[in-house]
Amino acid sequence: MKDRYLDFVNSPFGMSIARSLGLPRPEVLRRQRADQAEFGGMAAIGAGPAPALFDDLMGVLCAIGMTSIAHESASGWLTVAARHGAMSGRFEPRTRDALATDRVQALIFDATGIEEGHQLHALYAFFHDALRSLGKNGRIVVLGRPPASRAGVPAATAQHALEGMVRSLGKEARNGITSNLLRVAEGADFESALRFFLSPRSAYVSGQVVTIDAPSVAPESWAKPLAGKRALVTGAARGIGASIATVLAGHGAIVTGLDVAASRDALDQTMLSIEDASPSGGAHAALVADIAAPEAPAEIAAALGQAGGIDIVVHNAGITRDKTIARMTGEMWDSVIDINLLAQERIDEILLGQDVLRAGGRIVAVSSISGIAGNRGQTNYATSKAGVIGRVHAMAPLLRGRGITINAVAPGFIETHMTARMPFGVREAGRRLNSMGQGGLPVDVAETVAWLASPGSAGITGNVVRVCGQSLVGA
Amino acid sequence: MKDRYLDFVNSPFGMSIARSLGLPRPEVLRRQRADQAEFGGMAAIGAGPAPALFDDLMGVLCAIGMTSIAHESASGWLTVAARHGAMSGRFEPRTRDALATDRVQALIFDATGIEEGHQLHALYAFFHDALRSLGKNGRIVVLGRPPASRAGVPAATAQHALEGMVRSLGKEARNGITSNLLRVAEGADFESALRFFLSPRSAYVSGQVVTIDAPSVAPESWAKPLAGKRALVTGAARGIGASIATVLAGHGAIVTGLDVAASRDALDQTMLSIEDASPSGGAHAALVADIAAPEAPAEIAAALGQAGGIDIVVHNAGITRDKTIARMTGEMWDSVIDINLLAQERIDEILLGQDVLRAGGRIVAVSSISGIAGNRGQTNYATSKAGVIGRVHAMAPLLRGRGITINAVAPGFIETHMTARMPFGVREAGRRLNSMGQGGLPVDVAETVAWLASPGSAGITGNVVRVCGQSLVGA
Repeated sequence: MKDRYLDFVNSPFGMSIARSLGLPRPEVLRRQRADQAEFGGMAAIGAGPAPALFDDLMGVLCAIGMTSIAHESASGWLTVAARHGAMSGRFEPRTRDALATDRVQALIFDATGIEEGHQLHALYAFFHDALRSLGKNGRIVVLGRPPASRAGVPAATAQHALEGMVRSLGKEARNGITSNLLRVAEGADFESALRFFLSPRSAYVSGQVVTIDAPSVAPESWAKPLAGKRALVTGAARGIGASIATVLAGHGAIVTGLDVAASRDALDQTMLSIEDASPSGGAHAALVADIAAPEAPAEIAAALGQAGGIDIVVHNAGITRDKTIARMTGEMWDSVIDINLLAQERIDEILLGQDVLRAGGRIVAVSSISGIAGNRGQTNYATSKAGVIGRVHAMAPLLRGRGITINAVAPGFIETHMTARMPFGVREAGRRLNSMGQGGLPVDVAETVAWLASPGSAGITGNVVRVCGQSLVGA
Repeated sequence: MKDRYLDFVNSPFGMSIARSLGLPRPEVLRRQRADQAEFGGMAAIGAGPAPALFDDLMGVLCAIGMTSIAHESASGWLTVAARHGAMSGRFEPRTRDALATDRVQALIFDATGIEEGHQLHALYAFFHDALRSLGKNGRIVVLGRPPASRAGVPAATAQHALEGMVRSLGKEARNGITSNLLRVAEGADFESALRFFLSPRSAYVSGQVVTIDAPSVAPESWAKPLAGKRALVTGAARGIGASIATVLAGHGAIVTGLDVAASRDALDQTMLSIEDASPSGGAHAALVADIAAPEAPAEIAAALGQAGGIDIVVHNAGITRDKTIARMTGEMWDSVIDINLLAQERIDEILLGQDVLRAGGRIVAVSSISGIAGNRGQTNYATSKAGVIGRVHAMAPLLRGRGITINAVAPGFIETHMTARMPFGVREAGRRLNSMGQGGLPVDVAETVAWLASPGSAGITGNVVRVCGQSLVGA
């Protein structure tokens, strides 16, 4: 479904109409393109007292080719830059006249050393001076610590307070700007997360809080972080699942796409187009199975085991059977719970039990903002998707010992065939009631999955990441 | 500010207009009135396998004078009723014709024994049959277990899944019906919470998940649960604070209302009207202090210490200084952080350090949905209110040893002088974008505070309870 409003107000004619009528004009989000560099431009750096991550941050910026300038709150940055042999300069707050030309691409604030509430003033000082200098599709990333890891109540309090700041900035910034908080435990590696949140790949991910609490290793190539990895994607024939399979393959993975027999043609097409775009010499595979069938998990495990096991499982397959509860049949309830939730349990049980999912593996489950906030007419769906989140919370600690992570992505309003069939009012509300003023695309979910599936994301487990453009809708 | 739309569509004339135009007609919420019984009518009971709380639940229903009928999912209920010498009967799903007359006031589901996802079907069966039988201002309460307390991933998963069900039901039910989930740990007492969520006192609290994880004692009188308790309420001169002071006094507490010198007249008036309504023989007191002043905490502690200490602290005082961050002054940032967050830290430090807040005490801090979701133009306010939540999380475990609980309430759109000054569009959006289709009243926040402050709520700590009518807006 095309978002005609978005197209219109961004056309030369529509732009002038929108301006004269005072209509909102959502930004056309910049997404990753093969013919454009992923990173570039300049980051402005701010900090509270005793920023702990300057060295690592500088290392990442050098690696991705971003230059930097230091706000006065980040006085130590220039020393760190010099140590890395990197050019850096001072950030000067822009006058309104200078704004049109001289933009930065990212505002990064190291808040790890903030241990008291009054030190939060440094956030104010930085974003007060710098927010207007942030260009379209810019990125705000605040680096903090997990509150529970802090000694003392004031430090835990101040670290939690960062949430309110990051989410408010996301709502103020507009212009396709995202704002996210990374809670980095001591000794944890945040390069994978920082790259994702600075990249166009996170175009529709804003207002999120991600905890990174373990060391990680860099992938051999950040351009193909999944090279050599094997992935299973359920529900891969169409929509979000097809996009996940495509993006994982683009990141270097060998993908087995699974779907039901009725979708065999679409699945074959998807896998063929993936093979064209990301040749594997025929190693990408289509697997036809009905995950509702009792024998399916064993069949899946056998098929994947023959190929030597897998590294990534993406539980994407899901169905909706919407009705208010009084009109819902028992079959509508059971089938949604079974396919969206219990099938994940059955498949993981055998993949983990038989070590088909290898040590260091990644499980990414697709939940939904309905699973967080509930939804009218979706008692079955919301219950199943809340269950997915519960499963991620419960399993994450159990899988740490094997180096396996499990996380959920929770899509908001994503433009698919499903949303195209919604009544106009519901669709428009879903599209506009978020900080981006538009729906997301399947690729936005897919890129988020790929990030969580990366070898570099070993320190990220038990998280729920919404891909919702900072939807207003929440619990 | 009057909600003229709500009044209009509930007038005889407006009702017929609304019906013919298909306009939404939010229900006038039933709130606690001195001349009406708090409880009454009939509860329909449903359950999953092995419901653990039937006995306690029956005890509470008998105590509050509610009768009950058992859905077929709750087959053991009749035996329990017989043991308690209570009348009970079978719930029969109503036909559409019978609906107009034969309503129940509450749907209560014991989900504590649900340990696998397919057992969630019992929730479907019960609410499918029973939701239409629930009358206006009815109550849905689901009793579950804290997911982390369950042995095994499927049980934790299923318990978390209840969230999606309860929140969806809240969005479907309408007519002033609330829907909430109580996670009751083994050995914990939920009577205080159950009474609150069945009562008109929780009129504007829906979609909430409350964890109760410790034993408690019943207050000597459920009618005056705070009898003999002394309470401090900051920001008591007007609005939500005045309502909190009034309601705590109504529940039997002796209240010290605190506000700044500039509000002295309003504070005196409030305390006088409280004395009229809930005579204390002059023990209710007004305390004038500026909590931003460095000497204030010691002065407050001295004043309260002289009276023999206190049992309840309600951190309600707060200010807003709204501006987008680029236009905000440093003073606007600092004053909001200081008064909304740091003053709470300073006051608690001395009250706890000098044991002015007695063992078994209660701290209730007023946060905001802005502190959960962020808000445009409120970086300072949202940061301070997120900090309040962080503080509750951090302090709760530390205070358990002294029997002191700490919880936050997070108001959504509450009708006050502040909201009356909002632009029309913003005000209407705030009023309508929630499951009740209207703003809440200060008394809704106050009753929630009083419940958390009750001796019966000893098992409730570290919770954040939104008083928002299940606002759409969330993180």
